[in-house]
Amino acid sequence: MTKGALALLIHGGTENWSPARWKARFDAVCADRRVALMPDASLDPAEVRYAAVWKPVPGELGGFPNLRVIFNLGAGVDALMADKSLPDVPLVRVAVPDLTSRMTEYVVLHVLMHHRQELYLRQSQAAKVWAPKHQWPAAALTVGIMGLGTLGADAAGALRRIGFRVAGWSRSPRTIDGVACFHGAEGMDAFLRQTDILVCLLPATPDTRGILDRDVFSKLHRGSPLGAPVLINAGRGALQNEADILACLGDGTLGAVSLDVFVQEPLPPDSPFWTHPKVVLTPHNAADTDPDEISKYVAAQIARFEAGGELENVVDRGRGY
Amino acid sequence: MTKGALALLIHGGTENWSPARWKARFDAVCADRRVALMPDASLDPAEVRYAAVWKPVPGELGGFPNLRVIFNLGAGVDALMADKSLPDVPLVRVAVPDLTSRMTEYVVLHVLMHHRQELYLRQSQAAKVWAPKHQWPAAALTVGIMGLGTLGADAAGALRRIGFRVAGWSRSPRTIDGVACFHGAEGMDAFLRQTDILVCLLPATPDTRGILDRDVFSKLHRGSPLGAPVLINAGRGALQNEADILACLGDGTLGAVSLDVFVQEPLPPDSPFWTHPKVVLTPHNAADTDPDEISKYVAAQIARFEAGGELENVVDRGRGY
Repeated sequence: MTKGALALLIHGGTENWSPARWKARFDAVCADRRVALMPDASLDPAEVRYAAVWKPVPGELGGFPNLRVIFNLGAGVDALMADKSLPDVPLVRVAVPDLTSRMTEYVVLHVLMHHRQELYLRQSQAAKVWAPKHQWPAAALTVGIMGLGTLGADAAGALRRIGFRVAGWSRSPRTIDGVACFHGAEGMDAFLRQTDILVCLLPATPDTRGILDRDVFSKLHRGSPLGAPVLINAGRGALQNEADILACLGDGTLGAVSLDVFVQEPLPPDSPFWTHPKVVLTPHNAADTDPDEISKYVAAQIARFEAGGELENVVDRGRGY
Repeated sequence: MTKGALALLIHGGTENWSPARWKARFDAVCADRRVALMPDASLDPAEVRYAAVWKPVPGELGGFPNLRVIFNLGAGVDALMADKSLPDVPLVRVAVPDLTSRMTEYVVLHVLMHHRQELYLRQSQAAKVWAPKHQWPAAALTVGIMGLGTLGADAAGALRRIGFRVAGWSRSPRTIDGVACFHGAEGMDAFLRQTDILVCLLPATPDTRGILDRDVFSKLHRGSPLGAPVLINAGRGALQNEADILACLGDGTLGAVSLDVFVQEPLPPDSPFWTHPKVVLTPHNAADTDPDEISKYVAAQIARFEAGGELENVVDRGRGY
């Protein structure tokens, strides 16, 4: 019996994410299944049952008539969903514990950096000034998390362990122990009003594009020890209105931001974010998941699927994530 | 019945730690007890049963013949212990949950900063370079904590929640769930060999002065994803050999350091630490405890003591902490 082939459609990776390294990893975990790194002229497209993709060219997935499942090698599927020619088969996104814990590392780090006045302290060090300012405890701040899926729930737990108050907002109702949960359009204002540090982990969908704008920033809690509220976006660049972020930093509506994602990536050299004194910028590496974990996850899902089991983390095309 | 007076011997405080503000706080929590901010010519020294001190002048505490208890308004008592004229009454150090959780904030922040390559990322931002480097997960590093009292144990728990492996070293044997515990001189080398990020929370005593030296740094784990091991000292400046730290940063024995404490504080303007690219420096504010919490803690201890109860956190003068 011949197992259906796995086609790899991988573009734009660097270092650990290079196509050749993905090929080697999938060869190692797919046993006797054929793994073809596309383009591969020796492959009959009809043999392909599975595709693992990273930034595929729009339309590229349409070339496999017997495709059963598409695996996206990252958590965000917004770029794939924008491809109107995407075949109508289950689309699975990566949700490995490794990705979750890395995102929690990022969130805890950036919340603590703002809470503990790191921007001020680095400026003081550079100026050779020994001038401790009043420092409030974590319990004096509420971190508000937009997006309460696996990532948001884990980050909430870690932040609570350190002493922060945590609120959360999601599209549909959620309940997380110790977290003040809000949902839907009707819950947004109450959520924002109590939030000192806004952490965005939402997926990019037609509903969430540009959601991080002046209207949202202006509703955040004012009068906290931070002075002005802080935004941390580790979701997607498409969620943020970058002109509004800059304007709100300028007029004090926002005190500082940490951005891991941008409308255009890599961030263009002329972006004012690079040198803004209130911007902490990272090159979309908040959750730089271990490719070994991802390839094992995909292989395990294929094995379960072929044994008649259910796929995990299938994207709801109506919701867009 | 007249309650014994509480004398406040407070020097060198700033802002929230000013003598007048301590007086107001203790007046608020000491009910009908006399609280005297020294010097106070109207006070009969024989009335004083309790003293709350912050950097008292050596010998100053010898002026109260009926003194029963000394409360130090911080956690570190090394300066007090160096005063050979210190009266032989119980010396209590502050150990409020607020101080513990603030120290944990500092430790988690600085461990995450080094783990997540913040020094590199800030340099990249300043140079307008979008160049994510390989990032390993927290589980790839062992954080080794020297000092496993209340502070060390709490920091260990928070670090484990984020995914780090945690080892610990203390003078006498300790057992902490999920932490590889070592103790005594005989346990030191094995502890250091597995430690990628060394966090020092030890008290300064004759046994620990200068303990953070080249000998210790050269035994830390080499070959971790960090490249070279990292030191974080939030204990006391007297613990560190500053010439060794600079030399070890220079020759790669250490990859980077976070220092909250220094041999001389404030750090002199000509110290090379200020501008060293591998040094993250904070002005001894790792655990800038809430004075309201401290004054309440002292008042509660006095009340319990007068009711015949035991004092908490009495310093063992033999050990020095």
